[in-house]
Amino acid sequence: MNYHQLTQTDRENLRSFISDPERFITEPTTHWDHDQFRTVTALPDLVIQPVNNDEVSKVVKYASDNHIPLVPRGNSTGLMGANLSVDGGISLDMVKMNKVLEYDPDSLTMTVQAGIRLKDIEEYLSDKPFTYMPAPAMHWATIGGNVSTNAGGLKAIKYGVTREHIRELKVVLTDGKLYKFGSKAVKSSSGYSLKDLLIGAEGTLGVITEVTLRLYPNPRKTINAIIPFPTLNDAIKSVPAILASGVVPTTVEFMGRKVIDLWEKYANDQFPIKDGDGFIILGLDSFTEEEWKAELEQALSVVKEFKAKEALVLGADSDEAKKIWKCREELLLAIQKSTPKMDEIDICVPINHIPEVLDRIEELEKELKIRIPNFGHAGDGNLHIYLCSDEMTDEQYAETSNKVISELYKTAKALDGNMSGEHGIGYARANYYEEFYGHDYTEMLRKIKTLFDPNDVINPGKIFEMK
Amino acid sequence: MNYHQLTQTDRENLRSFISDPERFITEPTTHWDHDQFRTVTALPDLVIQPVNNDEVSKVVKYASDNHIPLVPRGNSTGLMGANLSVDGGISLDMVKMNKVLEYDPDSLTMTVQAGIRLKDIEEYLSDKPFTYMPAPAMHWATIGGNVSTNAGGLKAIKYGVTREHIRELKVVLTDGKLYKFGSKAVKSSSGYSLKDLLIGAEGTLGVITEVTLRLYPNPRKTINAIIPFPTLNDAIKSVPAILASGVVPTTVEFMGRKVIDLWEKYANDQFPIKDGDGFIILGLDSFTEEEWKAELEQALSVVKEFKAKEALVLGADSDEAKKIWKCREELLLAIQKSTPKMDEIDICVPINHIPEVLDRIEELEKELKIRIPNFGHAGDGNLHIYLCSDEMTDEQYAETSNKVISELYKTAKALDGNMSGEHGIGYARANYYEEFYGHDYTEMLRKIKTLFDPNDVINPGKIFEMK
Repeated sequence: MNYHQLTQTDRENLRSFISDPERFITEPTTHWDHDQFRTVTALPDLVIQPVNNDEVSKVVKYASDNHIPLVPRGNSTGLMGANLSVDGGISLDMVKMNKVLEYDPDSLTMTVQAGIRLKDIEEYLSDKPFTYMPAPAMHWATIGGNVSTNAGGLKAIKYGVTREHIRELKVVLTDGKLYKFGSKAVKSSSGYSLKDLLIGAEGTLGVITEVTLRLYPNPRKTINAIIPFPTLNDAIKSVPAILASGVVPTTVEFMGRKVIDLWEKYANDQFPIKDGDGFIILGLDSFTEEEWKAELEQALSVVKEFKAKEALVLGADSDEAKKIWKCREELLLAIQKSTPKMDEIDICVPINHIPEVLDRIEELEKELKIRIPNFGHAGDGNLHIYLCSDEMTDEQYAETSNKVISELYKTAKALDGNMSGEHGIGYARANYYEEFYGHDYTEMLRKIKTLFDPNDVINPGKIFEMK
Repeated sequence: MNYHQLTQTDRENLRSFISDPERFITEPTTHWDHDQFRTVTALPDLVIQPVNNDEVSKVVKYASDNHIPLVPRGNSTGLMGANLSVDGGISLDMVKMNKVLEYDPDSLTMTVQAGIRLKDIEEYLSDKPFTYMPAPAMHWATIGGNVSTNAGGLKAIKYGVTREHIRELKVVLTDGKLYKFGSKAVKSSSGYSLKDLLIGAEGTLGVITEVTLRLYPNPRKTINAIIPFPTLNDAIKSVPAILASGVVPTTVEFMGRKVIDLWEKYANDQFPIKDGDGFIILGLDSFTEEEWKAELEQALSVVKEFKAKEALVLGADSDEAKKIWKCREELLLAIQKSTPKMDEIDICVPINHIPEVLDRIEELEKELKIRIPNFGHAGDGNLHIYLCSDEMTDEQYAETSNKVISELYKTAKALDGNMSGEHGIGYARANYYEEFYGHDYTEMLRKIKTLFDPNDVINPGKIFEMK
């Protein structure tokens, strides 16, 4: 795509849409050139920080009419480069659209601007009887980013992912108009769900400016059990059996001793359990103590068949529970610290097929001499798999990681899995998309992209290649 | 749209795709001309009953290439005429694609052909430890129809609607190719969710042939409480308070004495509670008895503030509970029996706004002298509102019901509601769509329709007018 280069006139026109010069950054610094992985960096020509729908409308329409790339971005916690201005142009930095617009407990909803961070939503709700249930581990992410990747998080088994907790979106499309997708009403059978099309679209179809969240009553009781197993394989194989036994946990995470060792080094701390090589963290919530106790008893009786050792059961507020969740949430950082460069694969497979993926990872580690630490969500089949550069040269690493990525996508495809469970495809994986999902399917996505964004200006080059 | 009229050559060509002449019905009877309401009837020129994806592919491609309308249909339990061949052409009757293709408990899924009925799925699972959780009241509907209207049902509060329980769809698009939308994996952040676009599309974008359902462990305990109130308004106003108190019921239905009287007459039976004019049926499920008892106690303490009378608490298998659910499921039939003609509105509003809708209904009953019995899902804001013709002439009824429909859509729109919670827009309401959702939004749907179905042959004239 040949884009129009920003001229002085463009800058003046765009400047006139924004009330405050401090939010119109004509010489972007490296603050705006990367995501969390910094695998690729790219500077936009201009950064605009809108504060309301009207500013977004004017900027988006101008960009579309004048063939200027426009990349919406949140707080840069993404891993796949979806926020990168790879074609230059305008970076639409949403972090100043960070207000709570309405708290409406009677309809069990709350409406926020798209640039608010998850942690701000959590803080806002901390003294309220409700919670926003999805639980992505990265609390600094914006809700707009969460919606755009359909962020999964730790509670998908019981409560679903971001998609299930979004009632309404306000979206600016390339015509510059503000659209309302969805409503505060719980159910709809009223035409194609454009809301669901925007969720997970990684900002390629329009700019999400406001989000109405579903509020959920705070669970009364919340507990965790950490269950050690002789091997990681034993741990993971127990999970479908737990779920089939009638227990519905909020969370089932898995991790192996290898990544825990990395965390102990990173955090200069000790994991509370010494015994065992594979672990699952089981989260349960309920209205009464009797309920979680019975569910836990059931789960512990199931895992015995998988050689489980003595479980550690902890209330949500205990120091040990906090440490275990801290460990889980810092695993990514701990792995990142252990290697000069890192890349990630977050395939999601049917829950019974995680062991095949882990076997393939072990084979690839041996075959290609690369360290591939991993952990993930055993309850929903979503793995986080990290490719560490360690001692490799940049060339060796690029070649090796490309091979691992290709091979693991083949594995995921063969197991009826998805390329990404929650991190998205972004820029980093767009060139693998068509191979994974096929030409016909990808063509459908291209047509939808063109329908929403005829000049291919809104976050171009992401998810799939336009060809 | 000017469609091609079926010629003898078309019939011969189409006939060659179908192995068995009994499934190629050249002279359709009235069996294929209506839905459950029979408000409009329309005969197709030809009925084809495919048994596999290949037959569907060939017929759909032929219809699209030759500009022949093709209407997929399930078991005709719809209320809005979405299954009607209003432009003639081919009725693609899916009821012989009714097989269970795979039961896969290890991945917590089950795959069926689209023409299987809900009741067959329930029967298949009756001796298994899993259930398909959505609970539309009409068990004779096909799963393809349920997916196409994103059927809601009785358990939306706790478990969500059909959308949340569909893992994968196989869909034939107008190019005649079979597409796979979604997978058995639980999570996806891998490009636009075409699966979610097809769900609720009322068969206008392609023909769904196979559906992979999410299986859920059977709840151990299930109970119901029927709570009487002095007025229906008191009953409904208690619901947001129950939900805000931390109780998460599976179900909260509301009904008034008026519709119960109709049912008693229809069923020649007695509703188990004599006292009170408004009722909510509260459903709870849990792993332990302690859990539902504590939740129920909490709910009953909340409803006291709303003047609730003595509740009747019943196990799921008690005769009285069965009678109450029978009453709830037969309300539609009971109302239908009470009047020569009937039409329905199933708007869904934010849960705290149901009382405003009921007030407006009362006003309209007085103002327009029409009987408008209703009941619905208090927990998700979805009302079922029936317009009874009674003594009116056909002309009077047409005029009056048109006014009521327009007025109640205005009410729903003003309250940030949806036109339909679960029954769809179909043919009957397509002419109201643009007024409700606006020109720009409707234009987006038209463009998506044209992208999927450039010749406008797949279920034309449904949801919105193409203009």
